[in-house]
Amino acid sequence: MSVITKMLESHPAGPRAADPRLLAECLEACGECASVCNACADACLGEDMLGDLVTCIRTNLDCAQICAATAAVLSRTATTGPATAALLHACMAACAACAEECQQHASMHEHCRICAEACRRCLNACEKLLVSLG
Amino acid sequence: MSVITKMLESHPAGPRAADPRLLAECLEACGECASVCNACADACLGEDMLGDLVTCIRTNLDCAQICAATAAVLSRTATTGPATAALLHACMAACAACAEECQQHASMHEHCRICAEACRRCLNACEKLLVSLG
Amino acid sequence: MSVITKMLESHPAGPRAADPRLLAECLEACGECASVCNACADACLGEDMLGDLVTCIRTNLDCAQICAATAAVLSRTATTGPATAALLHACMAACAACAEECQQHASMHEHCRICAEACRRCLNACEKLLVSLG
Amino acid sequence: MSVITKMLESHPAGPRAADPRLLAECLEACGECASVCNACADACLGEDMLGDLVTCIRTNLDCAQICAATAAVLSRTATTGPATAALLHACMAACAACAEECQQHASMHEHCRICAEACRRCLNACEKLLVSLG
Repeated sequence: MSVITKMLESHPAGPRAADPRLLAECLEACGECASVCNACADACLGEDMLGDLVTCIRTNLDCAQICAATAAVLSRTATTGPATAALLHACMAACAACAEECQQHASMHEHCRICAEACRRCLNACEKLLVSLG
Repeated sequence: MSVITKMLESHPAGPRAADPRLLAECLEACGECASVCNACADACLGEDMLGDLVTCIRTNLDCAQICAATAAVLSRTATTGPATAALLHACMAACAACAEECQQHASMHEHCRICAEACRRCLNACEKLLVSLG
Repeated sequence: MSVITKMLESHPAGPRAADPRLLAECLEACGECASVCNACADACLGEDMLGDLVTCIRTNLDCAQICAATAAVLSRTATTGPATAALLHACMAACAACAEECQQHASMHEHCRICAEACRRCLNACEKLLVSLG
Repeated sequence: MSVITKMLESHPAGPRAADPRLLAECLEACGECASVCNACADACLGEDMLGDLVTCIRTNLDCAQICAATAAVLSRTATTGPATAALLHACMAACAACAEECQQHASMHEHCRICAEACRRCLNACEKLLVSLG
């Protein structure tokens, strides 16, 4: 059991709207995706073919920002807040766009391949949590 | 003309999808709303009737987080990113919820009254920008 | 009187460690600097001579991140927290580095000139607040 | 090997100032600590003895904000930026304060016990990375 899961289970609210396991998985996927997207932007900035990666860098930075905000909001989600579903939708849109963009450079740049995977994982985790919120 | 507007006008992209004035107004409203919501959460934590303000603090913190992420994404919006519209929707949901919650304490707490106003201003600015994006 | 100043004055803590005017000025300078640095990074990404601006983009992004965190922490600073001084020092280091880097491109790129100015203003505001904290 | 480590190793910069393993460990500790501190603040808001936990909530929120900014900056640290060391110092100050405050409630609240541990782990990881930067 991860530290985050233990933490969510120690919350005094008791049984909450969101399934703690899905919540923890989504929160951790968002945090990982934020770091990976930021690292991909920085790696792109170090490539020789930088000019081809401008859209990728922008998409990475937006995705990192939205994933980080989603992770922060989810980590305070004792009970589902009124903007949680809308934020999950925004996070999914950012992850889908970044996965698609990074996938185009995946055969050239290992960091883009890893980033596309992290984005798909995060998109998936957001979708599962969103469905569970009903 | 604000520093932000000057900054957006100096961008090499030239005419962009978003109207620079609406973009600057929305960005500034988001930044202000983030600060005001964080300050309201902290002020609520200093009130004697703290127990009545728990939902208000949570709503403030979520709204601050989402507004700050929206400001950051908008400040990089040379051309409208694929998640911008969804993020504006999330920001509007957070602002609407926070405005409603803070309004209930507005006659008791000046900080809640100011915060409700800032949230409504931000909601409005997001809506105008969203409409202009078409 | 700005919305932020009104907000800080409505805090139940009454007279606080930090001078509310210096606190509000610093908070607003940090928020503005974060937006300007993010916008400068995005503008640099749109320039033809992108290869010459890689260090500038990285410095912009770091400065934006640290300024945004400083603004958020300051907006909750009813009483000065134990990490506030250290965070102000980090913010000053980021602003000094970004001002220096952007200044080198100021004659070529208006966005770098505006950004260097915003960084110096923020550095200044942090320094004044830090001195007042004693 | 974690996703973050793989990501940092795929960076085109090749051997970098910071040891990739220490960098990844610190980045992951900061991300975890940010989530745990946010979750602890929210859990404290749900406790009956809320009045005793006001300082804890404030310290949690500051620590979460500074840890999240540190994680973001470190994830872009191909080469050590000029503000990295100062930011690590701020992060260590925030973690030390939060560990101390949460420890005082550790026997009463499991979430405070877990949070104090996460803060000490993060403090440690920052210190090791800082030493390695020389």
